[in-house]
Amino acid sequence: MPGGYNGKILRVNLSENSISTEEIDELFCRKYLGGAGFATYYLWKELQPRIDPLSPDNKLIFALGPLTGGPLPGGGRNCIGAKSPLTGGIAKSEVGEFWGAELKRAGYDAIIVEGKAEKPVYLWVHDGEASIRDANHLWGSKTKETQQAIRDELGDNRIRVALIGPAAENQVLYACIMNGLYDAAGRGGLGAVMGSKNLKAIAVRGRKAPRIVDRERIKELREWLLANMRLVRDFRDFGTGGVMEAYEVTGNLPVRNFRDGLFPKVKRIDAQAVKDTIRIKMDACFGCPVRCKKVVQFEEPYPVDPAYGGPEYETLASLGSNCGIDNLKAIAKGNELCAAYSLDTISMGCVISFAMECFENELLSVKDTNGIDLRFGNDEAMLKIIEMVAKREGIGDLLAEGTARAAQRIGGGAEDLAMQVKGLEAGMHEPRVKAGLGLGFMVNPHGADHCCNIHDTLFEAGRQLQNAKSLGIVEPVPADDIGPQKVALFRLIQFNRIVLDSLVLCLFLPYNYQQLADATAAVTGWNTSIMEQMRVAERILTMARLFNIREGFTASDDALPKRFFQPKTDGVLVDKPLDPAKYDRAKRYYYTLMGWDANTGVPTPGKLEELDIT
Amino acid sequence: MPGGYNGKILRVNLSENSISTEEIDELFCRKYLGGAGFATYYLWKELQPRIDPLSPDNKLIFALGPLTGGPLPGGGRNCIGAKSPLTGGIAKSEVGEFWGAELKRAGYDAIIVEGKAEKPVYLWVHDGEASIRDANHLWGSKTKETQQAIRDELGDNRIRVALIGPAAENQVLYACIMNGLYDAAGRGGLGAVMGSKNLKAIAVRGRKAPRIVDRERIKELREWLLANMRLVRDFRDFGTGGVMEAYEVTGNLPVRNFRDGLFPKVKRIDAQAVKDTIRIKMDACFGCPVRCKKVVQFEEPYPVDPAYGGPEYETLASLGSNCGIDNLKAIAKGNELCAAYSLDTISMGCVISFAMECFENELLSVKDTNGIDLRFGNDEAMLKIIEMVAKREGIGDLLAEGTARAAQRIGGGAEDLAMQVKGLEAGMHEPRVKAGLGLGFMVNPHGADHCCNIHDTLFEAGRQLQNAKSLGIVEPVPADDIGPQKVALFRLIQFNRIVLDSLVLCLFLPYNYQQLADATAAVTGWNTSIMEQMRVAERILTMARLFNIREGFTASDDALPKRFFQPKTDGVLVDKPLDPAKYDRAKRYYYTLMGWDANTGVPTPGKLEELDIT
Repeated sequence: MPGGYNGKILRVNLSENSISTEEIDELFCRKYLGGAGFATYYLWKELQPRIDPLSPDNKLIFALGPLTGGPLPGGGRNCIGAKSPLTGGIAKSEVGEFWGAELKRAGYDAIIVEGKAEKPVYLWVHDGEASIRDANHLWGSKTKETQQAIRDELGDNRIRVALIGPAAENQVLYACIMNGLYDAAGRGGLGAVMGSKNLKAIAVRGRKAPRIVDRERIKELREWLLANMRLVRDFRDFGTGGVMEAYEVTGNLPVRNFRDGLFPKVKRIDAQAVKDTIRIKMDACFGCPVRCKKVVQFEEPYPVDPAYGGPEYETLASLGSNCGIDNLKAIAKGNELCAAYSLDTISMGCVISFAMECFENELLSVKDTNGIDLRFGNDEAMLKIIEMVAKREGIGDLLAEGTARAAQRIGGGAEDLAMQVKGLEAGMHEPRVKAGLGLGFMVNPHGADHCCNIHDTLFEAGRQLQNAKSLGIVEPVPADDIGPQKVALFRLIQFNRIVLDSLVLCLFLPYNYQQLADATAAVTGWNTSIMEQMRVAERILTMARLFNIREGFTASDDALPKRFFQPKTDGVLVDKPLDPAKYDRAKRYYYTLMGWDANTGVPTPGKLEELDIT
Repeated sequence: MPGGYNGKILRVNLSENSISTEEIDELFCRKYLGGAGFATYYLWKELQPRIDPLSPDNKLIFALGPLTGGPLPGGGRNCIGAKSPLTGGIAKSEVGEFWGAELKRAGYDAIIVEGKAEKPVYLWVHDGEASIRDANHLWGSKTKETQQAIRDELGDNRIRVALIGPAAENQVLYACIMNGLYDAAGRGGLGAVMGSKNLKAIAVRGRKAPRIVDRERIKELREWLLANMRLVRDFRDFGTGGVMEAYEVTGNLPVRNFRDGLFPKVKRIDAQAVKDTIRIKMDACFGCPVRCKKVVQFEEPYPVDPAYGGPEYETLASLGSNCGIDNLKAIAKGNELCAAYSLDTISMGCVISFAMECFENELLSVKDTNGIDLRFGNDEAMLKIIEMVAKREGIGDLLAEGTARAAQRIGGGAEDLAMQVKGLEAGMHEPRVKAGLGLGFMVNPHGADHCCNIHDTLFEAGRQLQNAKSLGIVEPVPADDIGPQKVALFRLIQFNRIVLDSLVLCLFLPYNYQQLADATAAVTGWNTSIMEQMRVAERILTMARLFNIREGFTASDDALPKRFFQPKTDGVLVDKPLDPAKYDRAKRYYYTLMGWDANTGVPTPGKLEELDIT
């Protein structure tokens, strides 16, 4: 085996209460890298078409990459994949903390969970062994209690736990899986899949560090990072969310369900405000010197437990400005609730802002909301809705289905207020500012995801543009451009994100494209390059596309919510709606560049043969 | 300016007897690299459509790359481009020796020659100065006499001279330009263009070494090469042509106009035989430790002057096996004649083998040939025809037009015997063995060129396959495969060759793809990568495609001679004709990968916008 891999996959069938180990070979590792690549491969290869994602037929893949658990900062993450109950397509999400590193040290590169346990169980994986254990007593517990109970039971406080809370047990379609208590594999409802399998948690512990072929080169890269911490100064100071005021000025900040532009009180809820008012410390994932994770604590008007960390930018915006809420403590409380119940804060926030706009537009009434005055800005209502969704109480049962399904049931034009693509609610970034990101929302197989996407403003000048020169993008590309140059750039950045998600490496660390290839080469011993990594990403992305096509998706599912083609009500974007014709052209050009049919978006037989996908 | 460039282009208008200097900027250098990139750019940008290539309207571009004249071995080459009188499309050819290095040291990155001198002239470029000088007294001279006369006249024996002989003056359509007396910019009739301008030579001398940003990294690459000379052991021992016996066994050796397979006397004419019988030494281009250039000398039955070097593989095959000739001394004499008259040995050999087959098929008679018994194997006839072509005497006047035009005039099925694409005669390699090379013959904008092409057998195993992994080609691709995987591989290798031709670096040095990018980065200071270099190549190739389309070329010009779709008469390829349907599919897939219309081969508007080509 190349360095960085254990060469072993743990397969757990909960229906049969069986555990087995499979070997993977070097060629497979090189063609799919790990993480998102492995997850996509196994889902494409092993899932039967059109299964119910919440049935035992679905599989849940936890996958590591060659850098996971190694000495290079950023390798604390893992990928989780399954068929999404929210979108009906492929879902994958990456998550930090220490769990992935621990699994690597326990001797595995991935865990494939199949079937459904008769009663609640958890999985205990340590040092090359695995067992399925009873979790009846944990079912219904929030994440903090669950994690502590497992650690107590197994007698080791250094055990790392991937786990779900009650929202996932209740199969809220956007329930997430938590690594510990701060870090969520948020998108696509992976928690609901885990809940449907009666799998409460996977506890891991390992002591064998992965082999590295060229330790010296990894050390150099690590030292480069340490010498260049200024590049992540904002993350160190604030974590995410330090630039929300600038976002509001440029129009990138979603306000009231992406409807409005102005949010004058944005300074009350940004990461600077978090630091100044409720933050008690910063924390880090495995081996990371950046320490970008906020930990907040306060007692009044309600206590917020620091065990649950603190809100990221996506949460500050989704539970904050996008709900018209400027009460930072309420947002922090909402964040805590989502972590405790295991809910994706982006989808949760979007569901609430959607419901608020429906309420203001009289598509929902107080009768529907169990008396809640569900107006924009009502932070008490926001907190209440989170609880109701987690427990599927009252309107929470409807809203637990996500914006797309809820809008269909509400009707009367509610569909136009559901800010989602393929069923996945949009990340907290604005296509009317970042044109390429809009294309990413459209065509991403997982839906309107902001991570596996371009943030166009970075490529107008500065370090990211400088880095992009190594990809052959040697001139600035305007953020609001959506012509062929942007499409080509988007595709490369999308590939880069897939590489990161397959390695699995944090997307906030400032490694450039060459350094990613160098790091991979150093760990594995391969003569790899940016070029090869991009090709691997092309293979993975095409496979994800095929997965969705098998599930019935067509080019018409690659569509943005109408709202983005309308102007905002105020702010700088009042006269900047997106142009549907330009997006139609961009989508077709993207398909062409991908070797997919320009009209249908179906990968051509030639491309599949070229990429060796069957 | 980045390192490696002078930032200066010398523009010479011979009609106006004027010389000027233009500056180029860093962005231009980064987007087009140099060499083939610069030549293609200026030809596309500055030539009027549909001009007569032998009129003053044509331009002749001599272009260097960032590595030219630097300390990295392989940087002794330069590119020459023009509209080809042979194909009517774009022509470019790379050539070794010291001339390019000298021009770099004289302070320029390229020379653009325009117009036509009233009387024969030569250009004298030295240390940032240039002048046009009378060459009346040199017109009609062979290359050896010309070079010496210029050196004597300018009083410096270290002057390097790019020059033409009588064949170019007589506008033989495949006349070449020589750097000194051994090294030819052979393909496409560039010598005829130079002759049409009344430009006999360009003499250069310079003393200013180009700037290098990271000398240490270049030194490392140089040392890597010196430590790995085993990788070029065959070239050191034999130069090209050491494997002709193996070529005959596998079917790659062209025999009697690509008609036959067996050539039992191949050992009489291969580079081993050259070494054992007529070779007196090996020589090298600027700064190259490989020393792959044969120098031969003998007196009987006719003298061969060592000043003209010795035959490369292409010459051994084109004047040898492909004419059915096994007389090594005759081949060496033919090589000398071609160098003295400035004739491309590949086209010259193909023209002769074509005429021989016409003669044997009774499409030509002794009446046509001025009494010459032009049968396969007649070495005296071969030598006679070279002289007649150079002087355009008798049948030489017809054959000076190349196989495509000659075949049209001869008629009666002669077209099927013309082994050319777009008018350029095929290099001495066999598409029925190397399937991707066949595609390269078809789609190369310059015609059936073997340099800017894949040699498929290298990618079945071994070092080249190992190198190709860094491009994402991680599994062997069979030599005779022409499916989408091969098409994709071919395209990348074609790109790689364009990168080499733009840098301008020798294609025989064993640098891998990453080392090429590293060398470029070290010289220029750019954060470049394989990925960027491939994109630059895509831009250049697309521009060359556009040039040809402007000249009237269509997808139907991307066609192989019929012979390749037929079996050979004997040897291993008697049952291995190429499959036209497979090639049609491959061509369409290649167009698709290039972002060209799958049917017409015309670059799509989106691709042009993406690559910033107008």
